[in-house]
Amino acid sequence: MTPLEALSQKQKRIQSLESIAGLLGWDEQTLLPQDSADQRQDQNATMAAIIHEAKTDPEIGKLLEQIEALPHGPDDTGIQAVLRDARIEYDRATKLPASYVEQHARLCSEAYHAWAAARKNNDFSAFAPYLKRHLELAKEGADYLGWGDRPYDLQIDFHDPGMDAQTIGTLFSGLKKELVPIVQQIIEAPTQARTDIFKGFPIPEQKTFLEEVTASLGFNYKRGRIDISLHPFCSGNGADTRMTTRFDEDNPLDSLFSSIHETGHGLYEQGLPLESLHNALGKAAGMGAHESQSRLWENQVCRSRSFWNHYEPKFRSAFPKQLEGISSDELYLAINSVSKNPIRVDSDEVTYNLHIVIRFEIEKKLFSGELRVEDLPDYWNSQYKELLGIDPRNDAEGVLQDVHWSGGAFGYFPSYCLGNMLAAQLWYTVAEEHSDLELDFEKGDFSRLLSWLRKNVHAHGARYHLMELSKKATGKELSHTSLIRYLKERYLPLYT
Amino acid sequence: MTPLEALSQKQKRIQSLESIAGLLGWDEQTLLPQDSADQRQDQNATMAAIIHEAKTDPEIGKLLEQIEALPHGPDDTGIQAVLRDARIEYDRATKLPASYVEQHARLCSEAYHAWAAARKNNDFSAFAPYLKRHLELAKEGADYLGWGDRPYDLQIDFHDPGMDAQTIGTLFSGLKKELVPIVQQIIEAPTQARTDIFKGFPIPEQKTFLEEVTASLGFNYKRGRIDISLHPFCSGNGADTRMTTRFDEDNPLDSLFSSIHETGHGLYEQGLPLESLHNALGKAAGMGAHESQSRLWENQVCRSRSFWNHYEPKFRSAFPKQLEGISSDELYLAINSVSKNPIRVDSDEVTYNLHIVIRFEIEKKLFSGELRVEDLPDYWNSQYKELLGIDPRNDAEGVLQDVHWSGGAFGYFPSYCLGNMLAAQLWYTVAEEHSDLELDFEKGDFSRLLSWLRKNVHAHGARYHLMELSKKATGKELSHTSLIRYLKERYLPLYT
Repeated sequence: MTPLEALSQKQKRIQSLESIAGLLGWDEQTLLPQDSADQRQDQNATMAAIIHEAKTDPEIGKLLEQIEALPHGPDDTGIQAVLRDARIEYDRATKLPASYVEQHARLCSEAYHAWAAARKNNDFSAFAPYLKRHLELAKEGADYLGWGDRPYDLQIDFHDPGMDAQTIGTLFSGLKKELVPIVQQIIEAPTQARTDIFKGFPIPEQKTFLEEVTASLGFNYKRGRIDISLHPFCSGNGADTRMTTRFDEDNPLDSLFSSIHETGHGLYEQGLPLESLHNALGKAAGMGAHESQSRLWENQVCRSRSFWNHYEPKFRSAFPKQLEGISSDELYLAINSVSKNPIRVDSDEVTYNLHIVIRFEIEKKLFSGELRVEDLPDYWNSQYKELLGIDPRNDAEGVLQDVHWSGGAFGYFPSYCLGNMLAAQLWYTVAEEHSDLELDFEKGDFSRLLSWLRKNVHAHGARYHLMELSKKATGKELSHTSLIRYLKERYLPLYT
Repeated sequence: MTPLEALSQKQKRIQSLESIAGLLGWDEQTLLPQDSADQRQDQNATMAAIIHEAKTDPEIGKLLEQIEALPHGPDDTGIQAVLRDARIEYDRATKLPASYVEQHARLCSEAYHAWAAARKNNDFSAFAPYLKRHLELAKEGADYLGWGDRPYDLQIDFHDPGMDAQTIGTLFSGLKKELVPIVQQIIEAPTQARTDIFKGFPIPEQKTFLEEVTASLGFNYKRGRIDISLHPFCSGNGADTRMTTRFDEDNPLDSLFSSIHETGHGLYEQGLPLESLHNALGKAAGMGAHESQSRLWENQVCRSRSFWNHYEPKFRSAFPKQLEGISSDELYLAINSVSKNPIRVDSDEVTYNLHIVIRFEIEKKLFSGELRVEDLPDYWNSQYKELLGIDPRNDAEGVLQDVHWSGGAFGYFPSYCLGNMLAAQLWYTVAEEHSDLELDFEKGDFSRLLSWLRKNVHAHGARYHLMELSKKATGKELSHTSLIRYLKERYLPLYT
C-alpha cells in the first residue's frame, strides 16, 4: 500500500463511523421514543469517543508527514484537496487538548439550557455569562489551532473553509446598501400577500404531493427518505440521504417549501461522487455551497411562475376544496410573500439576508471587542430598527431567538447569505447557457438544471472551496450583484 | 476500581456498541432505502469489527482470571451469573481463530443465496453441499470451544444456555406421544375454522387497533415503537424496544397476533432490569424463555375467550362493516384455527410443536451421522406424513422452507417449543395464584399478569437459565404436561 492508499483506508473507516453516528442523530430527531433519550446519549458518547480516536490515530499524522515530505507535491488538484482537508481535520482533532474539548462540550450543554430558560423568561442577562464564556473558549481554541490572531476567521473557516470576515464584510456591505431600499419599497407597497388563507390541507395528501414534487426535482428516493421532525433538516450522505419536513394542516406551503429546501441539500449530497465520500472529493465544499443548492431549488426554481404554471393545476387537483376561493395571483403572491418579521427562520428570502447581515456584524464586533455582550440586546434592536424597520417586542423575538450561539456556533450565520449569493449567481449562469431553461419547468422537467449543477458544482466535491467554486462554476468572483438582480426581478413586479 | 467494576465498565461499552449495531439492523429491516444496502453492509462490518475487538480485549481475560482466582467465589447468585456469562462470552469470542470466523461468515452468505435459489427451483441437491459444509464447520467450531464431543449440544447452548439434546429429546418424545393423537382428533373433527372471511380491513385502522391492544397489555410506547417490516420481529432492548409487524387488508388477525407476539418479547425486554443491560442480570435467560413470553401473551392470553369478551366489541366497532356477516363463534374459531399446513411459520399453535419436534430430531441425527444430508428430503417428508398427515408437494414447502440452516443456525428450532412448554407451565402457575385472573382480561386489564411475570421471570434476567428458571418460577421441572393440558382445554371443546 502507498501512504496515500493507507490514508484512504483510514478515512474510509472514519467516514463509516461518521455515517453511523449520523444515523443515530437522524433517528433521535425523527423516531426515538420520548423516554429513550438516555440510551441515545450514551450511544452518541460511545460513537464520539470512537470517532475521536479514529481521527487522532497517530498513523494518520505519520502518513500525512510522509506524503507532505515528498519533494514535489501532487500536480493533481484532487489529491491536493484531499491532503489539504485531511491535514486540517487531523490538526483540528489533535491540537485541542482533551480538557479543552471536555470544557467546550460541558459549556454547550449548560449554555443550551441557560439559553432555553432565558428565552422563555425573556431575560438575556441570564444567558450573557454563557455567551461570554463561549467567546473566551473560542479564542482559546484559536490559540491552540494557530489562529490566535484571527479567532473569528477560524469560526468562519469551520463552516466555510477559505472564507474570512474581511471578504464577507465587503460582500455584505455591498449587499446591505442595495437591499435596504428594496426591502423598504416592497414593505411599503400597497400589495400585500396573504398567507392565512390556507386551511385544512390533510397531511397524507400534503405528503403525497411533496413527494411527487421532490422526486420530480430529481431526489432519488431509492437512496433516500423523507420523514417528520420538529425542525426540517437533511442528514446522511449520497448513499442514504435522510430529509425531514413538518406538517401543519393550515400551512401547506411551509411543509412544501421546507421539503424542497431540504431536497436541494439532498440533491447536492446525492450528486457528490459516491466513491469518494471518505475524502474531500466526495464532501460538500462548505456550508455556503450547500446552502446555495437548497436556496436555488427552493427560491429561484420553485417560487417561479414557470414552476407554478406546471404545478398549480396539480396542487389544485390534490386540494380542490381548500383552494377553491384562492385565485392564481393570490396563490403566487403567498408563495412569494414578503413581510416584516422579527424572526429569521420565519422570514422570506428578501428580508432574510438582512437578518444575516445583522448577525455577522454583531459576531465580528463581539470578537473584536467593539461590542460588549452586555450591550448586545440594545445593539440588536437598533439594527433591526435601522435595517428592517422592526422593533422586537422582547429578547425572545430579538437577540435570544436563535439557538446557534448557545452551542458556540459563531461564523455559521454568514453561510446562509453567502449561499443566497451563490445561488443567484449560478442561476444567471445556467440561464445564460440555457436561455429556455424555464420552459422545462413549465413541463415539470428539471433534469437539464440538475445535470448542469451535477457537472458544475456537485462533481467537484470540496476540490474547490466557496470563492474558487464560484469562479469555476460561474466564471466570476462571488458577489452580491446577482442576488440583488434576482430579488429585484422576482419581487418588484409583484409589489407595486 | 475493583476488578468487577472494571469488568462492568467494559461490558457497558460492549452493550452500547451492540445496541448501536442493533439499531442499524432494525433500520435495515424497516426503513432503509432499497439502494442504500451497500452502505449499510459497510456500516455493519465496521460495527462488527469494533464489537469483536471490544469483546476480545485481553484486559477482560485478565480481569476474569483475577476474579476467578479469588479463594472464595461470590455467594451472590447474581454475581455468579454475571461471571459465568462473561466467561462464556469471552471464551467464545477469543477461542475461534479469525480464519474460522471469516470462513463461517463467507459460508453463511454463500449458503443463503444457494438456499434461496434452491428453494425457488425446488432443488434440495443444490443446497446440500452448503448444509454439509455448515455441519462440518459447526463440528470444527465445537473443537475450538472445547465441545468437540458434543457439537450439537453446543449449538443448543448458543440459543438456550444450559440445555442439551438429551434433555430436549426426553421432553419432546413425551410431548410427541401425547400430541399426535390430539392433532389427529382436531383435524378430523367436523368443525373447521374459516380464516378466509376477513376482507378489506383498512391498514390505518388496523394499526390504531393493534396499538391500543398492545399498549393495554403493558407495552411502554414511551420506550418503544412498532413499525412495518417484511417479517415481524422485536429488536432493541428495554431502553428502546423496536417491534415490527406487517399488514394485509385481508388478514387482520395475522397483523394483530404478530404484533401481540412481538409485544410479548417486548414486555420481557422492558421488564429486564434497566441498570443491568450490560450483564447477565439484565439480559434474557435464553431463547426458550424469550419465546415463552411471546407465546404466553399471544396464545394463552390473547386467544382466550376472556380476552375477546373484552375486545370483540372494540374490534367490531373499529371494523363494523367488515365484521358484519361474521358471528362471534366464527370469529373466535378463526382466532383458534387449527389446520394441516406444511409451512411452520403459517401453522397454528397446536401443530406448530410437531413441526419443531421433526426439526429437532433431524438436527440430532445429522450431527450424530445417523442421517445423511442426501437422505434429508425423504426423511423430512416421511416424518411430516407420520406426525402430521402431510405430504409436502415439493422441497420448497418441505425441507427448504426455513432460512435457519443456511445460516448454520442449528439448535435454534427447539427453543420455540421449549418456549411453548414454559408458557403453559407459567400460565397454570399464575392461574393457581390468581384463580380469577381471567376476570381481569374481561375488563381489558392485564396488569396483574404482567406484574407476576415481571417478578417471577423478567426480574431474574439471565440469573437462571431455562431449566432453573422453570423451577424458580413454576416450582416444577420443565415438562410437556402443562402444554398438553392447555392445548386440550383450549382446543378440544372447539373441535368436536
